[in-house]
Amino acid sequence: MTGQTISAAFYRGDKSFVVEDTQSVPPRPGQATIRVAYCGICGTDMHVYHGNMDARIGLNRVIGHEMSGIVEAVGDGVDMVTPGQKVVVRPLDHCGNCPACRRGHRHICQNLKFLGLDTDGAMQELWTVPAHTLHVLPDDLRMDHAALIEPIAVACHDVRLSALQPGEDVVVIGGGPIGILVAMVARDAGGDVVISEVNPNRLAIAKKLGFDTINPTEADIVGTINALTRDKGADVVFEVSGKQPGVDAMTAVAATRARIVMVAIHAKKPQIDLFQFFWRELQLIGARVYEPEDYEKAVSVVASGAVAADVVITDVSPLSDIQAAFDALDRSPTAMKSLIKVGPSS
Amino acid sequence: MTGQTISAAFYRGDKSFVVEDTQSVPPRPGQATIRVAYCGICGTDMHVYHGNMDARIGLNRVIGHEMSGIVEAVGDGVDMVTPGQKVVVRPLDHCGNCPACRRGHRHICQNLKFLGLDTDGAMQELWTVPAHTLHVLPDDLRMDHAALIEPIAVACHDVRLSALQPGEDVVVIGGGPIGILVAMVARDAGGDVVISEVNPNRLAIAKKLGFDTINPTEADIVGTINALTRDKGADVVFEVSGKQPGVDAMTAVAATRARIVMVAIHAKKPQIDLFQFFWRELQLIGARVYEPEDYEKAVSVVASGAVAADVVITDVSPLSDIQAAFDALDRSPTAMKSLIKVGPSS
Repeated sequence: MTGQTISAAFYRGDKSFVVEDTQSVPPRPGQATIRVAYCGICGTDMHVYHGNMDARIGLNRVIGHEMSGIVEAVGDGVDMVTPGQKVVVRPLDHCGNCPACRRGHRHICQNLKFLGLDTDGAMQELWTVPAHTLHVLPDDLRMDHAALIEPIAVACHDVRLSALQPGEDVVVIGGGPIGILVAMVARDAGGDVVISEVNPNRLAIAKKLGFDTINPTEADIVGTINALTRDKGADVVFEVSGKQPGVDAMTAVAATRARIVMVAIHAKKPQIDLFQFFWRELQLIGARVYEPEDYEKAVSVVASGAVAADVVITDVSPLSDIQAAFDALDRSPTAMKSLIKVGPSS
Repeated sequence: MTGQTISAAFYRGDKSFVVEDTQSVPPRPGQATIRVAYCGICGTDMHVYHGNMDARIGLNRVIGHEMSGIVEAVGDGVDMVTPGQKVVVRPLDHCGNCPACRRGHRHICQNLKFLGLDTDGAMQELWTVPAHTLHVLPDDLRMDHAALIEPIAVACHDVRLSALQPGEDVVVIGGGPIGILVAMVARDAGGDVVISEVNPNRLAIAKKLGFDTINPTEADIVGTINALTRDKGADVVFEVSGKQPGVDAMTAVAATRARIVMVAIHAKKPQIDLFQFFWRELQLIGARVYEPEDYEKAVSVVASGAVAADVVITDVSPLSDIQAAFDALDRSPTAMKSLIKVGPSS
């Protein structure tokens, strides 16, 4: 296979994307080329848009990693997928040699390459990736819904590491796109979920999805959770806000021996109530991206309808309108997940 | 059994103890009366001495809970021990009704009574306690060594919750009495242990006990641990210092997916590098006191000699000299564990 002329969206710095023709990359041995169907805009992509990651990714990068697509071609030695199959990419390429890889923690490889940031990504019609990153989808899965599998895999990883048991009380602190997905996956796992969020638009979406909600700027979150749990507190807490008040709340609402999952990226070092960790034997569990089993779980969660994909996906734009899509998402108070329709939708 | 005239040491406030005759408490149904042999001075007892706990315990309290003794008498319905047996007391009395108790976490009962603080303790010749708190000792165990079982049970609980595996790299941050015991129990469990401590006297004791040590005010702790672990970092970290630099070090020396056990009591809320919890999937595990299995493990650890009891016990004073013993411990730069000889030593 030689390269084909395709459309690709290049990030060129300062909130700008340019859609240009380019040559696709033919698959080398061990690689596969995917015809991208949809690609979601991740919070990380918004960081790129705002110029926060220029030093890492440069000024001529095709970004995008929340994608779905169809296998177009495979390189030598690739026998786990065949052209025509619907797939998603688990966008992690590990080194295999660092201490984390040697202990089997490849997803947090100390030299991890994140596809679509450290390499070109899915905002192009044909995307060539290591074949080991592929997960095959059921034939009847909708490709727009499948573009949610990557962020849902994050949620599946978070919920798996929490060891959530059916009937346990769950508080999700932060009701943005990841928080909402964590809440839906936790509910699907049998948790009784309350979402804490300060943004009225996000609260409205959480309610529309059937969740109990609390706005901690208007109500006493500790009193509310204690009332709901007969003074036990939450068995599992997901801190997705990335803010000091969220860190304060995560220990305050926790039951004895609660598991608190650290989903958020805290750029600053917040103050934390370590006494409560001692006194009530709380656990804090860091969780980053996903492992292969989380991707498989995410595929099944999307296929089963446990995640209300049509509520989460708030808009879809063609690749030619990527600039307008990023600009709109940056200003929107109500958007959850924006998709770019890169290629075929069937 | 009626009360007997016994000697008891009463805390009367402002660093003062008074040894007076008093009447022993006969055992009611479900209770046992123990003739106390030895009682160690805990860090918590030093907080009492300094007046920090007057509001909780009052000004006429017999303190002491790190004890060994012999069953003197039992109340109705007590058949798990008989007079003459060597025992230690696990000084926790739970309510049985709170959410923590209902979920089996009696040692962190939300209404926990700590014997020797919330009730009179072991600094008296006869101590009457709930029989469910007793653990029977081997006949040949030395009673002075047995007085270490309570703090060693703390260490056993910490090490158990860390899920330490043989061959794993361990850093203990803080080499005081509890840190040293954690280090010895972790070594006994197969860990390769390094102790981080700033006090030269404590460093000397750690070295005498055969541990690798580091003084983080003189050497680069991260560089040292990375060099020892081929850039992996520590698999298990015990934070026993209770200080901000210890909290900084605990994440900095940790391997990916490391377990950090929070042993220390942090009265202030320190800043914590939550980003590292996310990025390297660290876990923080709060650990408080002990459960019955930790006491059984501690008995076996003392009986096997895995803990160098004669190094840890730095002085022994009779009950009549309790005031001088507390005064000396408060000033001593080299003391590890001070025991009070309350009764018979055989």
